[in-house]
Amino acid sequence: MAAVNNAMTADFLRSAYGGESMAHMRYLIWAELAEKEGFPNIGRLFKAIAYAELAHADNHFKVLGEQKGDFTVPAGAIFGVGDTVTNLQGGIDGELHEIEQMYPVYLETAKFQNESGAERAFHYALEAEKIHAKLFQDAQDLAKQGKDMNLDTVYVCPVCGYTEVGGPEDNCPICKAKSSIFKAFE
Amino acid sequence: MAAVNNAMTADFLRSAYGGESMAHMRYLIWAELAEKEGFPNIGRLFKAIAYAELAHADNHFKVLGEQKGDFTVPAGAIFGVGDTVTNLQGGIDGELHEIEQMYPVYLETAKFQNESGAERAFHYALEAEKIHAKLFQDAQDLAKQGKDMNLDTVYVCPVCGYTEVGGPEDNCPICKAKSSIFKAFE
Ligand SMILES: [Fe+2]
Ligand SMILES: [Fe+2]
Ligand SMILES: [Fe+2]
Ligand SMILES: [Fe+2]
Ligand SMILES: [Fe+2]
Ligand SMILES: [Fe+2]
Repeated sequence: MAAVNNAMTADFLRSAYGGESMAHMRYLIWAELAEKEGFPNIGRLFKAIAYAELAHADNHFKVLGEQKGDFTVPAGAIFGVGDTVTNLQGGIDGELHEIEQMYPVYLETAKFQNESGAERAFHYALEAEKIHAKLFQDAQDLAKQGKDMNLDTVYVCPVCGYTEVGGPEDNCPICKAKSSIFKAFE
Repeated sequence: MAAVNNAMTADFLRSAYGGESMAHMRYLIWAELAEKEGFPNIGRLFKAIAYAELAHADNHFKVLGEQKGDFTVPAGAIFGVGDTVTNLQGGIDGELHEIEQMYPVYLETAKFQNESGAERAFHYALEAEKIHAKLFQDAQDLAKQGKDMNLDTVYVCPVCGYTEVGGPEDNCPICKAKSSIFKAFE
């Protein structure tokens, strides 16, 4: 397993793990609420993106390596069980924070501290979140009109969380994994 | 949806949501590692208990109600990708912390502040964690001898996270839900 030498990078990996774990969980909850509200495809989008966040959490946890430890982890999270338009705004806000603030700083720190494992994990997450923000925005544009998405199969790369509607390509454009390992949400 | 009037109870619900979300995630990771190490039944136990933690996270999130908000959440978590004996010790340590320290204080606070929704969510989690600690200890006793568990179907109540090997009973002994809704891990 990989390991991390620098305390600041390790702190950021733990915080990112906390944030991704909570995002995974709230997207599953919002998926269930979207289905109940009559938006099964938006529900499926939430579930697919929840799985991408699981891949991010998994990467951050494993990069931290073998050393066992017990920590109080501060991590950003959005709360609220609202209607689907509101919950999608929560998704957009969370993704934009990660894209514009959190992951750029975490990635810069990992480079600065020569932590290549963390750099890869943060890079994967940052690139995937850009897609998530756009997909949630597309979903919200429709939900505001009371419409569900017209959503083809959603494919998610289990290595990096890359998320694609339709396709998939031969190889993951973020991490180059073979698309045969992508998880399909149909 | 339920709501919470007191800031301290709300803080504790958010922290418990963070802790349960991270526990859910690391148990899934440790499940995968147990399977790779040749302990498929211990892996299945980790997966079943991960699902119980999801039920706890779900309860804490929903009790917080409709109000949308963005928070930095401090929450306890254990890290480390080790062998299965070590990972089970992480599971035991985390569950014992919740049983002996975290949930008794959160439950006492919810009662003191007359927050009945939070009281129920904390009570469900506390009772389920007692079972989890014992199951992880049973698993570790065997893993230390290089043996997998001889594990019947594991049933988990999706309402409260009650976890039972074999059975199930007619009604959940913690929350009284019909056992027909239990999720089976076989
Ligand atoms: Fe993510
Ligand atoms: Fe995301
Ligand atoms: Fe990928
Ligand atoms: Fe729990
Ligand atoms: Fe537990
Ligand atoms: Fe129950």
